[in-house]
Amino acid sequence: MALKAQVLYDFSAEPGNNELTVKEGETITITNQNIGGGWIEAQNSRGEVGLVPEDYIEFSQQPSAFQGAGTTAPPPSVGNVASADLSFFDAYAPASTPAPNQVDAGGLSPQPDTPDTPVSPYLSSPDEASNGNDPWSVWNADPSGGSSNNWASNPEGTQTGKSAADPWGSVSQGHPQAYQGPGAEDDEWDDEWDDMKSTSGYAESEAGDGGQFQRGGTHASAMKISLNKFPGFSKSGPELYLLSKQPAKGKDKLPIYMGEVGPVWSYPETQLDCVVADPKKGSKMYGLKSYIEYQITPGTTNRPVNHRYKHFDWLYERLLEKFGSAIPIPSLPDKQVTGRFEEEFIKMRMERLQGWMTRMCRHPVVSCSDVFQLFLTYKDEKDWKMGKRKAEKDETVGVMIFSTIEPDAQDLDLGEVDQKCEQFSRFTKAMDDGVKEILTVGHEHWKRCTGPLPKEYQRIGKAFQNLSSVFTSSGYQGESTLTDAMTAAGKTYEEIAQMVAEQPRKDLHCLMETNNEYKGLLGCFPDTIGVHKAAIDKVKEADKLVATSKITPQDKVTMAKRVSTMSYALQAEMNHFHSNRIYDYNRVMQLYLEEQVKFYETIAAKLKQAHSQFTTM
Amino acid sequence: MALKAQVLYDFSAEPGNNELTVKEGETITITNQNIGGGWIEAQNSRGEVGLVPEDYIEFSQQPSAFQGAGTTAPPPSVGNVASADLSFFDAYAPASTPAPNQVDAGGLSPQPDTPDTPVSPYLSSPDEASNGNDPWSVWNADPSGGSSNNWASNPEGTQTGKSAADPWGSVSQGHPQAYQGPGAEDDEWDDEWDDMKSTSGYAESEAGDGGQFQRGGTHASAMKISLNKFPGFSKSGPELYLLSKQPAKGKDKLPIYMGEVGPVWSYPETQLDCVVADPKKGSKMYGLKSYIEYQITPGTTNRPVNHRYKHFDWLYERLLEKFGSAIPIPSLPDKQVTGRFEEEFIKMRMERLQGWMTRMCRHPVVSCSDVFQLFLTYKDEKDWKMGKRKAEKDETVGVMIFSTIEPDAQDLDLGEVDQKCEQFSRFTKAMDDGVKEILTVGHEHWKRCTGPLPKEYQRIGKAFQNLSSVFTSSGYQGESTLTDAMTAAGKTYEEIAQMVAEQPRKDLHCLMETNNEYKGLLGCFPDTIGVHKAAIDKVKEADKLVATSKITPQDKVTMAKRVSTMSYALQAEMNHFHSNRIYDYNRVMQLYLEEQVKFYETIAAKLKQAHSQFTTM
Repeated sequence: MALKAQVLYDFSAEPGNNELTVKEGETITITNQNIGGGWIEAQNSRGEVGLVPEDYIEFSQQPSAFQGAGTTAPPPSVGNVASADLSFFDAYAPASTPAPNQVDAGGLSPQPDTPDTPVSPYLSSPDEASNGNDPWSVWNADPSGGSSNNWASNPEGTQTGKSAADPWGSVSQGHPQAYQGPGAEDDEWDDEWDDMKSTSGYAESEAGDGGQFQRGGTHASAMKISLNKFPGFSKSGPELYLLSKQPAKGKDKLPIYMGEVGPVWSYPETQLDCVVADPKKGSKMYGLKSYIEYQITPGTTNRPVNHRYKHFDWLYERLLEKFGSAIPIPSLPDKQVTGRFEEEFIKMRMERLQGWMTRMCRHPVVSCSDVFQLFLTYKDEKDWKMGKRKAEKDETVGVMIFSTIEPDAQDLDLGEVDQKCEQFSRFTKAMDDGVKEILTVGHEHWKRCTGPLPKEYQRIGKAFQNLSSVFTSSGYQGESTLTDAMTAAGKTYEEIAQMVAEQPRKDLHCLMETNNEYKGLLGCFPDTIGVHKAAIDKVKEADKLVATSKITPQDKVTMAKRVSTMSYALQAEMNHFHSNRIYDYNRVMQLYLEEQVKFYETIAAKLKQAHSQFTTM
Repeated sequence: MALKAQVLYDFSAEPGNNELTVKEGETITITNQNIGGGWIEAQNSRGEVGLVPEDYIEFSQQPSAFQGAGTTAPPPSVGNVASADLSFFDAYAPASTPAPNQVDAGGLSPQPDTPDTPVSPYLSSPDEASNGNDPWSVWNADPSGGSSNNWASNPEGTQTGKSAADPWGSVSQGHPQAYQGPGAEDDEWDDEWDDMKSTSGYAESEAGDGGQFQRGGTHASAMKISLNKFPGFSKSGPELYLLSKQPAKGKDKLPIYMGEVGPVWSYPETQLDCVVADPKKGSKMYGLKSYIEYQITPGTTNRPVNHRYKHFDWLYERLLEKFGSAIPIPSLPDKQVTGRFEEEFIKMRMERLQGWMTRMCRHPVVSCSDVFQLFLTYKDEKDWKMGKRKAEKDETVGVMIFSTIEPDAQDLDLGEVDQKCEQFSRFTKAMDDGVKEILTVGHEHWKRCTGPLPKEYQRIGKAFQNLSSVFTSSGYQGESTLTDAMTAAGKTYEEIAQMVAEQPRKDLHCLMETNNEYKGLLGCFPDTIGVHKAAIDKVKEADKLVATSKITPQDKVTMAKRVSTMSYALQAEMNHFHSNRIYDYNRVMQLYLEEQVKFYETIAAKLKQAHSQFTTM
């Protein structure tokens, strides 16, 4: 039976691209669903055949499945469309035709001339910063399932129905773009267009704030530790490590030393760095599918490698899986399409990928890992494929990472471990609040600076100039000195209006980006700390477990030792976090204030110049 | 029959002041209405007798007459309370007890901490600046009586019911505080409290904008030429001069010379100036009545004279009556009580009286007039009384002022006269629009600078400081350099918040005051130019008048000559206006920009200092 579909939105074919023009309400027959890249081949009533964007149509059997910004799960009837694509259906858009639910967002790009609709690339609303998407709610005893609100609108939401009473609820949730398992490793790597699709459920709020750039914070606000290689792990939790027979095999050891500030990771002699640059558009499938490839050049080899966003995502998944229990791995910049123009989007994504890579390079454990080194220094396609396969087979993942950690110090007692963990939990929660406050305030300030404020300076400038032209019409002699000066003063205020409107990109942008990055990073701590809290709880009930013969007395000793190791890892990680934080905030505040000083000095200089033209003889 | 009254508001007697405490709703018996100064003697049900503020009570026979912010005319039953007091009833307030309709206004004084209710002393709303109280509507053919909307809510509104089709409608309207004629000259000069009463009809909007200061613009936006010494003048208009037998008597001549810029008044060798200073509170009537006396010191004699506001008002009325047809005489600063504190009010009134006096001193015709010289240099009470009597008997007032003008130039033909008049009309109308635009924009800017903007800088400052205290709690070593710097940066933004909130008083204030003054001045032009337009119209119909034997052919020649004289006067006045305008705007723009430069430089310096505390080692 021929599969029929209803056209949801008008679509105009681009000449020469094998596309089919369709009208809203039209019924078409699907002739090939296996095109991929968000396209479907269809035939209209006149017998014409061509490609149509998938999310412009609605399958007749599933009348509502493809409609709107979806919290709906993908319909099973779609057949062999790759399931990884499904979560992106609703906001998919080919470059030549903006998807309908992006039109609003596109119309809201910040321009000094339309200041009533100012756009800040950060946070759709202050509420979101302080309430919504709050990964910290895991620690609040919210019986209504608040711990899973990060993913409430996610298409994979059906997997996240765990009760908040289960502290592992958030840990066991699958990442929305989680790697699909070894079976998928040789697949098409999907289309780069997928990367530019809006993640379902964000589309609505995206339109609300103009969605200028990626809202990394929303997406990055929590790290979801993917542990699906270990079925039932969510129940057994950290016992896997606490009770494991270790050392299992010869592994890379992760030593921890006692430094001046306490336990510290072993830092490489020279800090790794890399440059993400030179985004290039590639295409395949007769030009229908295109993707962006970034050039990443590590400082060590100085030899560039190319990677698509998908590859970054693969790396992220590997790092999360391997280190996530010990080290907060911030999410990649969001996948959403938020830039109105492709170049803007690519530039912003690149900037954020650079930020992400820099943070990973700076981390002594992550940067030295095989998988990270593979990503930065693979020699050729074969090398890459082999490395990938090996990384995906790595079994020292999840809590087992702790089995590689070797603290060069005495074991800590459970009280100390507990107290340290509580302290870090409090600190990261408090900092998360502080960072969100800056983002909220910055967002408000951004709106004012690009909205009403320049409009007002413009009006002041215009008012001076208008009065100046009235004066010019007086017919009175010797008017011109005043009118020239007033016109100049008016123009100066118009220039100030422009400066004000442009300033946030020069200073507030950095401040927001850094805080946004920290918001993402801090969003990972509840999960990481959650692993530790669960381990501590297990050790606390060790006596009971011994009494009921669930574990041996020797197991209890082992568990106590291992939770001490975990604590050293957490302390080393916190110390790493603190030292980076101090550097980052010093730096961003310097940048911010430097630009602010320049801004005010420039205004003062301009006004001084304007002032000099007036004269009272 | 005893006159009864209902108490509208609670009033607490001040000890030793012969006052009577009354409660809202209480019925009292009036025992003496002739106390004056806004007080009435009354007896309560317990037989106690004392003074009660008039506007705290409502006469039983006239239940609504005294209630609320009144557009109601004063009730006739009030008896022998001086009629000059009546228009002030509704907002009357003794110093110790704010009138009920001021309470709101008092709560709205601008403070950085309550920026949601920002106050600008200018304009209650942009609408008002652009639409309401528009004296220029005289020139719009608005059949609905738009020309009298200045006085729509005025208690003397019953006199202003003229049709807008009558171009003299606005000229013939009595000034709301118009001098009551020679019969009143020896009266008590009323009480200074009268000066501080709110003019009826403004009370409501006053509460709306916080009523911080006087809204000079509202009041001063039109000069109402008082010509009630010449009954029926509104019908005969400029004919009085055009057809008068002149020269009537030996008068002071007002020569007009041809200067570089065209016709100019004869300017004195040294420009008169004076200083209004040292306001002193005086009192009479057992301390119940008090008044403010200002010291005015002319630069010529350097000998101070004292005057109360009433005296300024008398002077204004004399100048308006004498020169208003030829020279725009701006109204005095408003009479309203608008300062929350008496000192603030007195300071503001003094500042504006100084501005008014300076403008009058600068005017070559006004400053040399007998009445102005009397005001500035009277020797003693006797001298003052004699001078007053003489001034009030002056018959060279209204259009007759033109009979004293002697242009040292050839007569102008009617076409030129008409064209000049049109040009000035256009210019002053255009400038009025431009000035109002600046006032509107400035008002908006004032609100933003004292409202949301500092609030935002405060929040930025607080956000930095909050993050700084979170950092302090990290327990990590070497935190203090960053946290000290962040706290300092946060405090700097709080300082900036304060600077922003205080800045308008330093710069915008001057700009607004000058434009407000010009708004008042420009508001006089429609009347002044109206006199000229009416004269031109008369001359235009001279042929018809000759034909119907209403005037002789000789009269026609005289009229043409006289309208030429009027034109020279108008041109001289315009040239005076232009030269002052150029000086004033150069000066105010200099002041404004100077303060703006200081403002931005100070901010830059503060931020530079904050910047220097951050360090990236």
